[in-house]
Amino acid sequence: MPPPFATLTVDDLVYLRRICGNDDVICDIDELKIYGSDETEDLNYPPEVIVKPRTTEQVAAVMKYCCERNLPVTPRGGGTGLSGGALPVFGGVCLSVEKLNKIIEIDRDNLMVVVQPGVVTQTLQEAVEEVGLFYPPDPASRGSCFIGGNLAENSGGPRALKYGVTKDYVLGMTAVLPDGEIITTGGKLLKNVTGYNLTQLLVGSEGTLAIITEIILKLIPNPQYRKTLLVPFGDLEQAAVALTKIFFARIVPCAAEFMERAAIKAAEDKFEKSYPHADAAAQLLLEVDGNDERLLEDQCEKIAEVCTECGALDVLIAENKARQDEIWALRRGVGEAVKSICPYKEEDTVVPRAQLPKLVRLIGEISKRYQLTTISYGHAGDGNIHVNILKKDLTDDEWENKLPSAITELFQQVVELGGTISGEHGIGWVQKRYLPLALKPEELRLMRKIKDVFDPRGILNPGKLLPDE
Amino acid sequence: MPPPFATLTVDDLVYLRRICGNDDVICDIDELKIYGSDETEDLNYPPEVIVKPRTTEQVAAVMKYCCERNLPVTPRGGGTGLSGGALPVFGGVCLSVEKLNKIIEIDRDNLMVVVQPGVVTQTLQEAVEEVGLFYPPDPASRGSCFIGGNLAENSGGPRALKYGVTKDYVLGMTAVLPDGEIITTGGKLLKNVTGYNLTQLLVGSEGTLAIITEIILKLIPNPQYRKTLLVPFGDLEQAAVALTKIFFARIVPCAAEFMERAAIKAAEDKFEKSYPHADAAAQLLLEVDGNDERLLEDQCEKIAEVCTECGALDVLIAENKARQDEIWALRRGVGEAVKSICPYKEEDTVVPRAQLPKLVRLIGEISKRYQLTTISYGHAGDGNIHVNILKKDLTDDEWENKLPSAITELFQQVVELGGTISGEHGIGWVQKRYLPLALKPEELRLMRKIKDVFDPRGILNPGKLLPDE
Repeated sequence: MPPPFATLTVDDLVYLRRICGNDDVICDIDELKIYGSDETEDLNYPPEVIVKPRTTEQVAAVMKYCCERNLPVTPRGGGTGLSGGALPVFGGVCLSVEKLNKIIEIDRDNLMVVVQPGVVTQTLQEAVEEVGLFYPPDPASRGSCFIGGNLAENSGGPRALKYGVTKDYVLGMTAVLPDGEIITTGGKLLKNVTGYNLTQLLVGSEGTLAIITEIILKLIPNPQYRKTLLVPFGDLEQAAVALTKIFFARIVPCAAEFMERAAIKAAEDKFEKSYPHADAAAQLLLEVDGNDERLLEDQCEKIAEVCTECGALDVLIAENKARQDEIWALRRGVGEAVKSICPYKEEDTVVPRAQLPKLVRLIGEISKRYQLTTISYGHAGDGNIHVNILKKDLTDDEWENKLPSAITELFQQVVELGGTISGEHGIGWVQKRYLPLALKPEELRLMRKIKDVFDPRGILNPGKLLPDE
Repeated sequence: MPPPFATLTVDDLVYLRRICGNDDVICDIDELKIYGSDETEDLNYPPEVIVKPRTTEQVAAVMKYCCERNLPVTPRGGGTGLSGGALPVFGGVCLSVEKLNKIIEIDRDNLMVVVQPGVVTQTLQEAVEEVGLFYPPDPASRGSCFIGGNLAENSGGPRALKYGVTKDYVLGMTAVLPDGEIITTGGKLLKNVTGYNLTQLLVGSEGTLAIITEIILKLIPNPQYRKTLLVPFGDLEQAAVALTKIFFARIVPCAAEFMERAAIKAAEDKFEKSYPHADAAAQLLLEVDGNDERLLEDQCEKIAEVCTECGALDVLIAENKARQDEIWALRRGVGEAVKSICPYKEEDTVVPRAQLPKLVRLIGEISKRYQLTTISYGHAGDGNIHVNILKKDLTDDEWENKLPSAITELFQQVVELGGTISGEHGIGWVQKRYLPLALKPEELRLMRKIKDVFDPRGILNPGKLLPDE
């Protein structure tokens, strides 16, 4: 547990207002409640105050003050996190980056963008697409999540298969340490071996080491064409084999998404629609992109051939944007549909891709043994499956009792398959108890010491990522 | 400076032989001399003993013993480093990974390879190419460097432009900490946000934090075709503009290499050949690769068009492998040719790509002012230029006096251009004095503390990467 923190006083409020201005330091009770939640289950831990700095220097002044005063600070992006990383579990200061929301420069000559952390990811994507460039990482929440949060969590999304995750695009940043010192890492450089790689250490550190205030991202030329396929299978194992064979046909899809029957059914119920082959055990959503339309057509044909050989029930190719949008609306809607059924707990399992059939079988066995309803979907190409465990008609007691054992067993077996407990949602507040299932004591000890290097007083995002000792 | 270390005793030798066996613990004076150098200038610091462990457990036992005995340990890969990272500057133990040289598994289903650090990079590349896969990073020394050394230095090479550097392929590793503890990081996972990213912290840490003993690398399907172009320009600025325009034509070359006239001339002298357009101010070597030959032909045409518009003197397209090999032999031979002229010092400057013309102008100005001969070549696509400063007819005194000031000035201006002092060669022993030009005291302090977390006794590769305090 972190040391006891100070409680916010009126003097603190006055001082914080002097740094950020009256309007950007908020302690309205309704606002505090809103900033007490992200999208993790139904958890709520209101902060004592919200500050919304507009410059790196203001962030530095806030941190310096809070460090001296021993006030806990929880950084917040778009509030779309799924592991509770932005929950102010010890109260104190919520430092929202929402007003650090400028795209500072789109550098067309270097194919880079310089951006503040509070820019919405989709806004960033659209801005660079306007000049023919492409920022590939696209978490499901891209319409509301912030690029700063994407860095904190090292967000993925469907395109990770071909294009990688957030960390693969971060070339440098400006960040404020917990004591208020400002550092810069990396630069507009495609190669850089000048000292330890602090950039990559900060990406994915869930706001526990520093507050990122400026980001340099690599861009690539925007692919002009994309083709989307929806392929139902009678059996998930066939789908997994098909995916491997697609790679061996030298095709790297830009997405290979998986939805099991129950997920499609949930979407049908929620959106009052009917989808083709909704009774198939599993559907693969495949997408290829590039700048040569004929080549993409060839690739679609080849994919269809491979899938059919592997036992696909059908291959639907979406040639135009309207059909593509429809298929993606289904895939993106699945999460919302599943989560609207009843209270749930979502796990973010990831295994080596070839172990996917075993993972899905395993999820089935554990659900059965614990008499739990689970619905799975996710990024098959990455071996990254989101498992939603539904409360359904379980009593609160049954739910509270069964869940930790079921999750522990799931994670233990995932680790045995060579996998780990989070692919893209992070550890944050709700998964930290399970971290020792994935990491050895030596590894955890190193991580604790790294945390101490950056944050010796333990004031920055306390209670997150590392399990309680 | 690190603390005073113990001196090797006969008892130490006996103990190390008990761990690794008699044949793999060597103190023959001629061998020690060989292991006292890498490819950095003419430096030689012989170790007191060479150990060649064959298992992770042996590495762990050696480290545990050396840590307790306070003996410095310098890990060594293929000995091809250019910043002195493998020089045993404090004597002690040279831990060579040359017998940890197995390709453990080529995992075709997951498109990954598991490998020990002592495998020669080219051997690894050829082994995966045999099954249709591709490991892109290809440092110039790929015929003799080890993959473990590539990780330690985060090596780049010409293909980094399209495919990224070593770090972009490392998914996980087994490593031994200085006290002998064994950790594993990452896994066969394309997505992983389970704790701090120790994998990416260790890549590029130059053997100062841990000894890597097993590596999981990502592979991609091997592109079937490549086309190579050699494009002479009368003016480097034109070449840089052409490069930017190629990207805007939505073409990402897999190489965009730069050689200035003096570099080509050095190759002509060394290899007694004559190259076309050898009098051009600069030559660009461009390469595109992919699986659709017609598309590559289109790209070559487009590149030729763009280059001609930008003032190229000619565009030579190498259609067959023999011509391609010839062009690459020139490019790869340039380094050797330049270095064979006389004693030299090589700097590994990197700037944002668009600043390349300024960097080249700057190198010219500084050479002129200090009356030094410099020859430049390198990876134009990455903004990464290797500057070779030649001693020529300078006396030893002149050389020793001029060099540090000239390099300092070069680096200061490189940093002002948004660049840094090493793109792919590392800091090691010979560049550490210049690190404060690129990093702020706060950043260096963080790095020192990270070193202390991993290596509190300072026995692992002492004297490297971080400047003396």
